Amino acid sequence: MDRNISQKLATATVDFDKPGKQVGFFHIPLSVHDDAWGVVPVPVAVIKNGVGPTVILEGGNHGDEYEGPITLGELIRELDPADVQGRLIFIPAINLPAVNAARRTSPIDEINMNRSFPGDPLGTTTRQIAAYVNDVIFPMGDAFLDLHSGGSSLDIIPSAVIEPGATPEQHAANVAAAKAFGTEIAVVIDNRGDPRTATASAALQGMTVIGTEMAGGGTVSIDALALCRRGVRNVLAHLGVLPARMASPVAAEPRLYDLGPKAHVIAEDDGVYEPLHKLGTAVEAGQLAGRIHFLANPGRMPVELHYRASGILYGRRQPGRVRPGNCCFVVASPYTAPQA
Amino acid sequence: MDRNISQKLATATVDFDKPGKQVGFFHIPLSVHDDAWGVVPVPVAVIKNGVGPTVILEGGNHGDEYEGPITLGELIRELDPADVQGRLIFIPAINLPAVNAARRTSPIDEINMNRSFPGDPLGTTTRQIAAYVNDVIFPMGDAFLDLHSGGSSLDIIPSAVIEPGATPEQHAANVAAAKAFGTEIAVVIDNRGDPRTATASAALQGMTVIGTEMAGGGTVSIDALALCRRGVRNVLAHLGVLPARMASPVAAEPRLYDLGPKAHVIAEDDGVYEPLHKLGTAVEAGQLAGRIHFLANPGRMPVELHYRASGILYGRRQPGRVRPGNCCFVVASPYTAPQA
Amino acid sequence: MDRNISQKLATATVDFDKPGKQVGFFHIPLSVHDDAWGVVPVPVAVIKNGVGPTVILEGGNHGDEYEGPITLGELIRELDPADVQGRLIFIPAINLPAVNAARRTSPIDEINMNRSFPGDPLGTTTRQIAAYVNDVIFPMGDAFLDLHSGGSSLDIIPSAVIEPGATPEQHAANVAAAKAFGTEIAVVIDNRGDPRTATASAALQGMTVIGTEMAGGGTVSIDALALCRRGVRNVLAHLGVLPARMASPVAAEPRLYDLGPKAHVIAEDDGVYEPLHKLGTAVEAGQLAGRIHFLANPGRMPVELHYRASGILYGRRQPGRVRPGNCCFVVASPYTAPQA
Amino acid sequence: MDRNISQKLATATVDFDKPGKQVGFFHIPLSVHDDAWGVVPVPVAVIKNGVGPTVILEGGNHGDEYEGPITLGELIRELDPADVQGRLIFIPAINLPAVNAARRTSPIDEINMNRSFPGDPLGTTTRQIAAYVNDVIFPMGDAFLDLHSGGSSLDIIPSAVIEPGATPEQHAANVAAAKAFGTEIAVVIDNRGDPRTATASAALQGMTVIGTEMAGGGTVSIDALALCRRGVRNVLAHLGVLPARMASPVAAEPRLYDLGPKAHVIAEDDGVYEPLHKLGTAVEAGQLAGRIHFLANPGRMPVELHYRASGILYGRRQPGRVRPGNCCFVVASPYTAPQA
Amino acid sequence: MDRNISQKLATATVDFDKPGKQVGFFHIPLSVHDDAWGVVPVPVAVIKNGVGPTVILEGGNHGDEYEGPITLGELIRELDPADVQGRLIFIPAINLPAVNAARRTSPIDEINMNRSFPGDPLGTTTRQIAAYVNDVIFPMGDAFLDLHSGGSSLDIIPSAVIEPGATPEQHAANVAAAKAFGTEIAVVIDNRGDPRTATASAALQGMTVIGTEMAGGGTVSIDALALCRRGVRNVLAHLGVLPARMASPVAAEPRLYDLGPKAHVIAEDDGVYEPLHKLGTAVEAGQLAGRIHFLANPGRMPVELHYRASGILYGRRQPGRVRPGNCCFVVASPYTAPQA
Amino acid sequence: MDRNISQKLATATVDFDKPGKQVGFFHIPLSVHDDAWGVVPVPVAVIKNGVGPTVILEGGNHGDEYEGPITLGELIRELDPADVQGRLIFIPAINLPAVNAARRTSPIDEINMNRSFPGDPLGTTTRQIAAYVNDVIFPMGDAFLDLHSGGSSLDIIPSAVIEPGATPEQHAANVAAAKAFGTEIAVVIDNRGDPRTATASAALQGMTVIGTEMAGGGTVSIDALALCRRGVRNVLAHLGVLPARMASPVAAEPRLYDLGPKAHVIAEDDGVYEPLHKLGTAVEAGQLAGRIHFLANPGRMPVELHYRASGILYGRRQPGRVRPGNCCFVVASPYTAPQA
Repeated sequence: MDRNISQKLATATVDFDKPGKQVGFFHIPLSVHDDAWGVVPVPVAVIKNGVGPTVILEGGNHGDEYEGPITLGELIRELDPADVQGRLIFIPAINLPAVNAARRTSPIDEINMNRSFPGDPLGTTTRQIAAYVNDVIFPMGDAFLDLHSGGSSLDIIPSAVIEPGATPEQHAANVAAAKAFGTEIAVVIDNRGDPRTATASAALQGMTVIGTEMAGGGTVSIDALALCRRGVRNVLAHLGVLPARMASPVAAEPRLYDLGPKAHVIAEDDGVYEPLHKLGTAVEAGQLAGRIHFLANPGRMPVELHYRASGILYGRRQPGRVRPGNCCFVVASPYTAPQA
Repeated sequence: MDRNISQKLATATVDFDKPGKQVGFFHIPLSVHDDAWGVVPVPVAVIKNGVGPTVILEGGNHGDEYEGPITLGELIRELDPADVQGRLIFIPAINLPAVNAARRTSPIDEINMNRSFPGDPLGTTTRQIAAYVNDVIFPMGDAFLDLHSGGSSLDIIPSAVIEPGATPEQHAANVAAAKAFGTEIAVVIDNRGDPRTATASAALQGMTVIGTEMAGGGTVSIDALALCRRGVRNVLAHLGVLPARMASPVAAEPRLYDLGPKAHVIAEDDGVYEPLHKLGTAVEAGQLAGRIHFLANPGRMPVELHYRASGILYGRRQPGRVRPGNCCFVVASPYTAPQA
Repeated sequence: MDRNISQKLATATVDFDKPGKQVGFFHIPLSVHDDAWGVVPVPVAVIKNGVGPTVILEGGNHGDEYEGPITLGELIRELDPADVQGRLIFIPAINLPAVNAARRTSPIDEINMNRSFPGDPLGTTTRQIAAYVNDVIFPMGDAFLDLHSGGSSLDIIPSAVIEPGATPEQHAANVAAAKAFGTEIAVVIDNRGDPRTATASAALQGMTVIGTEMAGGGTVSIDALALCRRGVRNVLAHLGVLPARMASPVAAEPRLYDLGPKAHVIAEDDGVYEPLHKLGTAVEAGQLAGRIHFLANPGRMPVELHYRASGILYGRRQPGRVRPGNCCFVVASPYTAPQA
Repeated sequence: MDRNISQKLATATVDFDKPGKQVGFFHIPLSVHDDAWGVVPVPVAVIKNGVGPTVILEGGNHGDEYEGPITLGELIRELDPADVQGRLIFIPAINLPAVNAARRTSPIDEINMNRSFPGDPLGTTTRQIAAYVNDVIFPMGDAFLDLHSGGSSLDIIPSAVIEPGATPEQHAANVAAAKAFGTEIAVVIDNRGDPRTATASAALQGMTVIGTEMAGGGTVSIDALALCRRGVRNVLAHLGVLPARMASPVAAEPRLYDLGPKAHVIAEDDGVYEPLHKLGTAVEAGQLAGRIHFLANPGRMPVELHYRASGILYGRRQPGRVRPGNCCFVVASPYTAPQA
Repeated sequence: MDRNISQKLATATVDFDKPGKQVGFFHIPLSVHDDAWGVVPVPVAVIKNGVGPTVILEGGNHGDEYEGPITLGELIRELDPADVQGRLIFIPAINLPAVNAARRTSPIDEINMNRSFPGDPLGTTTRQIAAYVNDVIFPMGDAFLDLHSGGSSLDIIPSAVIEPGATPEQHAANVAAAKAFGTEIAVVIDNRGDPRTATASAALQGMTVIGTEMAGGGTVSIDALALCRRGVRNVLAHLGVLPARMASPVAAEPRLYDLGPKAHVIAEDDGVYEPLHKLGTAVEAGQLAGRIHFLANPGRMPVELHYRASGILYGRRQPGRVRPGNCCFVVASPYTAPQA
Repeated sequence: MDRNISQKLATATVDFDKPGKQVGFFHIPLSVHDDAWGVVPVPVAVIKNGVGPTVILEGGNHGDEYEGPITLGELIRELDPADVQGRLIFIPAINLPAVNAARRTSPIDEINMNRSFPGDPLGTTTRQIAAYVNDVIFPMGDAFLDLHSGGSSLDIIPSAVIEPGATPEQHAANVAAAKAFGTEIAVVIDNRGDPRTATASAALQGMTVIGTEMAGGGTVSIDALALCRRGVRNVLAHLGVLPARMASPVAAEPRLYDLGPKAHVIAEDDGVYEPLHKLGTAVEAGQLAGRIHFLANPGRMPVELHYRASGILYGRRQPGRVRPGNCCFVVASPYTAPQA
């Protein structure tokens, strides 16, 4: 029933079943003070040709993560439908209000899109968008590629992200697709089993799911963007929708990591934090990780921060300013596949 | 007269003439809704010993630039007064409200401290702080060290900044002090002759003036912080306030650059910009510098940005999101000293 | 059960069953920072006399639509209970916080009252008001009159609005009542079947439902107010609650229109739009409707807007400033009644 | 199921089953623009020893009520585990974001914690905290002590508050515990049966429940703080968790009151209100209670406010400024226990 | 000196002395949190040919008045330099930040551009723009055309506005130019002699000055835009910069009015106002003009508003919502030229 | 000249020279987004009769201090002109926007009226009001009575405040008038010689000046209001404008105090402060005054606050929440009159 409501209230200016290339929008109604009968026009593109799987490519889930949306926009403009076998559905700026505001969360309802799946067609805008994607677009898909970066608050080693699969088969497919992306490391991130992410919701519908984290700091990374451009093509070739010649050779299999319960170093003080190591450094649990300085009280000694897990420094907070509860460091530990 | 008002309305908890080390505040009255008789407590420290010049060290002129304030706080806590010959006056978080808010400008009056000198003792808070520093502290100084970084919006090559001197003697002293800092490059920045910066105001009072730009992106840079820690000690040793043994050997003289009238590449479109070169790259006027992508309209072609001057890429915008008028790139050109 | 909670948490200062005229409030508890034990006092009035149907009259569903609330306030003050046969329940400012703020949506929870029915007695304020009306007041009613105008963002031809009925009988009753109002045109608006409007919720409870759109632009229209004053009395006479002598003669039956799926012209650009036709003009699908000008870039050519449906120009955006997704024009097409 | 999700998404740094004293946090994930992988660190402490009941002590349900949190903090720091028989679980700042902001409601989601129980582990922060407390902590408890004051908007006679029990046994236990607190009056407050308070939710789980109102005005009352310090120890001794020697002798049984449907005097005008009586004064229904003055129109006569119930003046609004709907006075009437 | 600072700190991308057509910007530096080295790019265009006067054309002084900027943009794009004799300098969106925000005042400093002349090159953005125009552009001009509309808050009869001249000669030139515009009425508006408007500042520099008020309501008026398009060309032909063939024939001389000290009807109550007459109606001092209704208190009688001067209803408030101090009506009275 | 501009731009609806009683406004023009031609209507009243001095009575200088405005409003409504000998000019809500917002400072420009004298007729609203009062009203006065209370942030012993006089004669007149008010203590407050207060500005024009502090906490104090009602009449009788029979007998001369440079205890930490003494308690420099508790970290020990001067506890902060720089306590010390 919800699915019907999503389709009734929202409308797309593209026909998902029509061959060739179309670039348009789906319109989510938004009746607000300065526009009683307006819509949120979320961009969507379809390239369809021949026979093959349907791959859904999403960017802009958080509005301040740019490598994915730039890569998807280029593919939309540059791909020749004749090169496609199957169907590509692009949603390069899914949380459009957040993308326009360059914020992680939507300025309309302050909601994090990646904590709002499967959405609600009668909820606020972010949930309505999630519901449309979940109810109308996801059922068409065989695979789902969700392109994240670190965003304004985090700088992360560019890497493929592996969504834990519900079945061994799905898990293997997810791992294989992540490996095809071509990063040096790939990380299993389960978000504590939170069911509200786009990838968790896509996985529940049975799709093969691939994620990424591409640098961050709220900027566009030259290196991560180059990696993302190659990686997306690689995955599409791996999935058989693009020809193999459009893939780039990958040097080696990525090393696999995951984020354990002690991966995050959380600040308990209000100040400015100084990191001691660069991303990728091998670190040990208990090792000094950084210090929090108190600029308003120069006589006060800094407080020390220590790693809680061993592995590599996978991510760190971008803003120097920290408050209690802020995540300063994230350590990825070597991944051991669950026993069969 | 203004000088008197500054001293009457504001009060310091330290005695600038007392030998030894003191850490305290100067209090700028602030009568607001939730604190009718309160103050803004700007941290200040004094270390005085023996005979020698007075050096004023400032950080936190912009509240999101951290290498300077961290370095100054460490010096305040670690320096033994016996090592000082003369007097050090530290103002490590001069725009305290901005520092607490981690913003370039003060949340109280939205004013940029570095466009508010010589201040106004009866103006809003930022101008009152500037007036106290200009009227009460600057007259005590022989040299002034103003530690900036790129802040939230810019990433800049860590470098000493040369304030143009009013006389050949002052200019030479400024250049010499900047060279002593020990960066690979040093850049003459005149802010179009804007008289409202702290350094311009200090120069007007006849002091030797040294500035810096230390990385940026609103974060704490490991490399820039290390450079800043060494450089400040180097300058203090160069000025004779610290013993030579506390300076670090400097590999070579810095290359000198300045910012010409075409240094800045300004965006004319609303989108997300992609840079093509890393900081330090040699670039030519007319060369393609980057592109602005339109994420909300994936069918629209990106717009190109070009450098307008030749030299090295000295700084670039940190946030990917740009709007018309935003500065995307800054090119520093080789400096030719004015002819005698 | 919900109905009981609505009645327990909220209280009315009027007795809905008492004959005569009462003007009071129903109190929705609102425990906020500056009033821990306060309420939102929603005005309500009851005029009861003799035997006859109960008609519920609502205004202020959107807080910037004034002709309805003004008309209802006058009726409350001026009607002699002796003229009433049955019962009138007035809720002239149902979204009181929005009315006080002169905004479409409530400043308390930013919710559109007309997307919040049937409400939630334990939800935020707008939903609590909707729940009280839906659970406690609607069950008393035989007919429901919901007086809207275009609001701040739209200017609309003053017209009766026909709520689609769930049964042929209800539909016929709705059409007959709308015709009685006495406008030149009447428009069937189904809001894409959205179940969250006041009228949809009232219809679900079996009432005869009449709506309006009365000019707009966030102002009070002299002509629309005159029309509204006559129309409400006409409908009440049509329903038998007021004597026929209080109705005004209506010149002719209104022409019937509806809003099809292509009624709305949505902006895809960010600028200032220029309309080419006045309301009521006959227009054709494909015809040039207006232009979007780019004031910040006078060298850029304007973009053209075209109608997507044929009919009459029924409404247009009031603010000149448009952003992508804003509705600029609404075209009403001749209505063809569904076949029996 | 919800209970499991609460435990999976949130984590505590204390072990609730470990003997001795632990002070830590439970972490509620909060993924926002400036901290993608951060948490809200809600303070929690456990003191466990020997055999006895588990008492849960909560403060900071509203962030501007201070006597409770101060008292609980002192107990956490000062209590010797050897004095405890059973277990004390302290949540002294349950709505941490509200406490940090000194506001009744959370600045994150603007929600009143005391209208959000039993919470939602997938909801906004306030609801997530409530869910963690309700799902994970409440099941461990035998008794629950919820320490409120009047907050920024109310000044209230310091008093124990009696939560109505679901059974005669629970009710008697609640009354006895409230009497043990040692105030001059104790008041039955049922919040119109609203099920969303912490105490109502605790009562539903079968605990003995004790509340308080301790002065208010957004300040710390010297007298109420002294009373709170004594009262909490008295209740813990009454419950057998602390030794009797730690209780203070109580002069006399409190007089019992409750709040009837006409307890509150609500403003209908916009102005500044003048009270005529001090807290504790005996007042009569119909008596003049105060006046609303119109400072912007000095020619306009003030409007009078009258009490609607007889009893004692139990609370009054702190801010002089009132708007329609604000509660100006609260009258407590002598309590008559329900007949068996 | 100020003039020099304006030129030093701001830069134009056009050369005001170069023949032909140029469209560019002048850049006002703006160093803010998210753009340390950015600018405000105010659009400017120059069309120069042959010999003749320099006319400066300004729009966007208030950011929500659109007929002027649209007309100037069209002229910039459409005029052939060969048709010009002299020089046209266009500043079609002088308060660019306000234009982008569609607000009367700038979102940067909340300042009304038309109360900020002659500006301050070291002040906030609005004053810096005013200083650049006043110091750098005004000295080039012989005549100044300032195109206003009623804006968001007022609806005004489209009319030429006569700036009082400092000398009889200047006054006569201003009247003649206003008459050439071709409206049915022209109104002398002296703003109580406020020296801070653009037109007052231009007049002080000796230019012939012409103003307008073109409808309003924050929308684009079809009729007023047509009038504006004709009127600007008419004035330019009258001034000899465009050929006579580009002017439209004007039916008759406009009737002249002015605004006396009792022109404005100011609300003293908080409610929604109902107007009784349409613009252009002849009204008398003392006559009933409208009523203020109290929607939150339907039992309260409306308050009456009366005209204070006789003449025609020249303007009225657009938003229905009024608060004390709001201007509801403006009456223009027949103008009597001052005696020689 | 400024004086002329004040009179030209602002207008009063009362005639200050007309005998009898008038209640009206002076209108300060305010041209903002939602009211282009509106005004701020500041209430003013004049009662004139017979021969005698002109006394100016001001309230609402801070918008959250109520005893003064209430008292002045009552006098305006109740005084019979026949009882007056001379002239009373009332400005009971001088900072009207702040009074309407119930804030210390104006919501329009965030300025403290009592730091904005002598004002600026071309400045922002608060300065324009100050200029009108300073330039137009003050020159008519012989004495000035400025009624303050503690406001939202302070609770202060109700007391007369003595403005230091410029000459021994003026000082003696000020002391005599303050004594006539009839409080138990009177306090000399010089605001560090800040020239921007209303009283300092009035004193500069040669008037006899009397101030007050009447309780506070943002509420209306029953006792302070009673005191204020008596005191104002007493002063007016003392000045000879009201007959002696309208004064209340005063028990004894007030004890005199002043505020020395160490009167204020300023917080250096971020937490919730607990006071140890009630207002009026005799305290000693160095004595423990209170503690700051850290509610978010219950394990952290509180910080102690100590008095810095000896005398009586004259005022204390109302909000429990403190941040660095907040004033927690104010100690008044016995006053020694300056030696002749």
